[in-house]
Amino acid sequence: MSKGLPKRSDDYSAWYNELVKKADLAENSAVRGCMVIKPYGFSIWEKMQAELDRMFKETGHTNAYFPLFIPKSYLSREADHVEGFAKECAVVTHYRLKNSADGDGVVVDPDAKLEEELIVRPTSETVIWSTYKNWIQSYRDLPLLINQWANVVRWEMRTRLFLRTAEFLWQEGHTAHATKQEAWDESVQMMHVYAEFAESFMGVPVIRGIKSESERFAGAEETFCIEALMQDGKALQAGTSHFLGQNFAKAFDVKFADKEGKLDLVWGTSWGVSTRLMGALIMAHSDDEGLVLPPKLAPIQVVIVPIYRKEEERIAVSEKANELVKQLRAVGLSVKFDDRDTHKPGWKFAEYEMKGVPVRLAMGPKDLEKGTVEVARRDTKEKSFVPADDALTQYVLDLLDDIQKNIYDRALKHREELTTPVDTYDEFKRILDEKTGFVLAHWDGTAETEEKIKQETKATIRCIPMDAPEEEGVCIYSGKPSTKRVIFARAY
Amino acid sequence: MSKGLPKRSDDYSAWYNELVKKADLAENSAVRGCMVIKPYGFSIWEKMQAELDRMFKETGHTNAYFPLFIPKSYLSREADHVEGFAKECAVVTHYRLKNSADGDGVVVDPDAKLEEELIVRPTSETVIWSTYKNWIQSYRDLPLLINQWANVVRWEMRTRLFLRTAEFLWQEGHTAHATKQEAWDESVQMMHVYAEFAESFMGVPVIRGIKSESERFAGAEETFCIEALMQDGKALQAGTSHFLGQNFAKAFDVKFADKEGKLDLVWGTSWGVSTRLMGALIMAHSDDEGLVLPPKLAPIQVVIVPIYRKEEERIAVSEKANELVKQLRAVGLSVKFDDRDTHKPGWKFAEYEMKGVPVRLAMGPKDLEKGTVEVARRDTKEKSFVPADDALTQYVLDLLDDIQKNIYDRALKHREELTTPVDTYDEFKRILDEKTGFVLAHWDGTAETEEKIKQETKATIRCIPMDAPEEEGVCIYSGKPSTKRVIFARAY
Repeated sequence: MSKGLPKRSDDYSAWYNELVKKADLAENSAVRGCMVIKPYGFSIWEKMQAELDRMFKETGHTNAYFPLFIPKSYLSREADHVEGFAKECAVVTHYRLKNSADGDGVVVDPDAKLEEELIVRPTSETVIWSTYKNWIQSYRDLPLLINQWANVVRWEMRTRLFLRTAEFLWQEGHTAHATKQEAWDESVQMMHVYAEFAESFMGVPVIRGIKSESERFAGAEETFCIEALMQDGKALQAGTSHFLGQNFAKAFDVKFADKEGKLDLVWGTSWGVSTRLMGALIMAHSDDEGLVLPPKLAPIQVVIVPIYRKEEERIAVSEKANELVKQLRAVGLSVKFDDRDTHKPGWKFAEYEMKGVPVRLAMGPKDLEKGTVEVARRDTKEKSFVPADDALTQYVLDLLDDIQKNIYDRALKHREELTTPVDTYDEFKRILDEKTGFVLAHWDGTAETEEKIKQETKATIRCIPMDAPEEEGVCIYSGKPSTKRVIFARAY
Repeated sequence: MSKGLPKRSDDYSAWYNELVKKADLAENSAVRGCMVIKPYGFSIWEKMQAELDRMFKETGHTNAYFPLFIPKSYLSREADHVEGFAKECAVVTHYRLKNSADGDGVVVDPDAKLEEELIVRPTSETVIWSTYKNWIQSYRDLPLLINQWANVVRWEMRTRLFLRTAEFLWQEGHTAHATKQEAWDESVQMMHVYAEFAESFMGVPVIRGIKSESERFAGAEETFCIEALMQDGKALQAGTSHFLGQNFAKAFDVKFADKEGKLDLVWGTSWGVSTRLMGALIMAHSDDEGLVLPPKLAPIQVVIVPIYRKEEERIAVSEKANELVKQLRAVGLSVKFDDRDTHKPGWKFAEYEMKGVPVRLAMGPKDLEKGTVEVARRDTKEKSFVPADDALTQYVLDLLDDIQKNIYDRALKHREELTTPVDTYDEFKRILDEKTGFVLAHWDGTAETEEKIKQETKATIRCIPMDAPEEEGVCIYSGKPSTKRVIFARAY
């Protein structure tokens, strides 16, 4: 580890950027807006993928793979959809290069122009519904419950590692149903699956809610979402699930015959989470020393660092350490024994703090004498000396559970402290500026008011919470009547 | 299942195409050359991925992710590489669409032209070595042992599902080393990993060898490969591993300081297998009734089909079947109980034959009386009646092992029968036309002879086998001296 990070309190944004680099998570590539996900960062993403994939399969979904390219004309089939996605996409126009006339490098071969341009998928509703048309004839073909893990491209102008990149990795579920109710239930179910994943694995508490019409997915009739609050008081949309109604079935003429043989349009949903979750994970828990990872997603859960001066000490400590490694791995823990002699223990401590390893064990000759090991937990930085015997395994397992719980509780407490109901527009603006966080306010339900508030304060409606209580009130902006509070925040 | 397949003996190519469709593996998409991998096909690919990924990790590799796009100029950095890949790539020239003037659809926005065109990666050596330049300073940073699972695009003119598609899925390993020997050993190791996977999991025997210079990867100094023989006597290259020498290090100026501080260029390898393996798997084992899958890669290893007429029979059979399901799943088998009442048993039998499920259990009222179950194995279509008791689990496990072994042995026997040493060019041509398969012949080692033989016979040098014995001989074409036989074949 070279130098430390900027302090969060000084410059949260610089702290994030540096942390992503110093913890070896990702970096910018030579292609504007496209990132390289480095091995350590990718191993966290793999853990996320594995858990999500298991949850999708447990709820009856299977994986498939659809093409990277979408014919340009497909995008225009659904009117709202094209408005949302045509503005920011990578367009393939040619299929060959040739040697340049001056012999220096290659140029696009003008003879190899495509008849119809291809769009690199920004999302796959169009290409998937054009395929579903051939897969669905009768109610017996329904439901289709399909997911894909894929890369997508949206030509964002201002990018930030994980949070907003031109290319990103994600999963996109696309389901087709015989009834409106079934499709509705599916989209609600997937919002809950995402929330369960965010809370139980990422340790990130989320609000489950519905997007306002202006924030809805282009082509959806309703968008469900999970919204998280970051340490700096800004919101981050962590996952969305869309009830598509019959919009894409209409656009691609996807009909099914019911039991009586009557033809009807199919109902659809789509839902996705992306490498953006990495950004949420980083910003929700980490501190000025580096990453703080929830044990359930940490590539290395326990690191053991030996401390010694002389060779015989090294041998004795290593022998004991290897016993502990074996013992801890036997219960399925991911354990690293860092016995490199090229780095000092202090350097290693700093490195594993930067990388967010939940539990660090350190052991030297004195520990051997006493039969103990020093256990340091990453989340609170507390240390304790614990007997290095058979009971250590259970101690570490309990500690990991406790860390998982603690970082969730801490994030929840933070969110609760930064959730403020307000009743006037002045108070609204003051809270946004001085306290930040989620602001609960009455809103008249119109896109005009939403847009004006956004223009004046940069705050958007994050969602209308699923569990918002009915409450008489008046819109903080227009004074018109309202029946429930919605959540406003400045957002990533 | 509607109609059956074309017979292999009548039209192998039509048989393959129909099988891929009827077994629900994949289909062509609306975008020329790009396929949709359907859920059943994808679940086989997922099993392949899981095993390969485990093998890569066991040999010390980690996964990462590099950008989809490559700046056009990068392709030209390595002279051979650009020759190999510039001819067939998808080129992104613009980053935005806009509404067309007539209001009907969208057009490419001419104002959104990229300064430098981007190539959709046909392979990632260039973008990865440009990244490695920043990751490698000293010998301490080496080796880098990185793999990525990704989609790539090569603009093939004639495409076939799995075998040759414009977009395909693959993994590409890219490693960097301090010494030539280490890089060489890595590329040899990965050839062996691929061979081990093909033989132990896919049940496909392969020849391990070295490519001739003309068939070498563009930018490599040596290409190792595994070559398989399909049922129709044509060869299929199933995986390649490249020793890159210092070529990409030179092109991207990647140097490291050794222990003495002296700067030297880094040595590299790259290696990959793709969804093409699906084509090899299908063509190696399947028959006129459908797929034959090796148990180790079968998404469903055992299917249970109940047979009944009356409701009380259905209830009794289902009860017993559910017991068996539980019993078989308890040892980790993937078991499907198909109790749909919308299809007859005979229809289901045909469907699972088409889908290659290795073991089928059928059970009716008579079996209940006798305490037996009918066990049918997919590979030989043999049936037997077996007691439906606790011992059934071991019986099925043994049977699956036997099927895995049998399909490998069968494919090996087929390859041995279709491997023919020849000593004259006339015999060479006759064997290629009449017998097909691998032809072992002496070759003078020149690209000219190789090219002429290819033009005259459509046969290419598949590889120079690793274990080819030293043997004095003369080239079948030029009559010049040769010291070992190489493998010729017509290939996919």
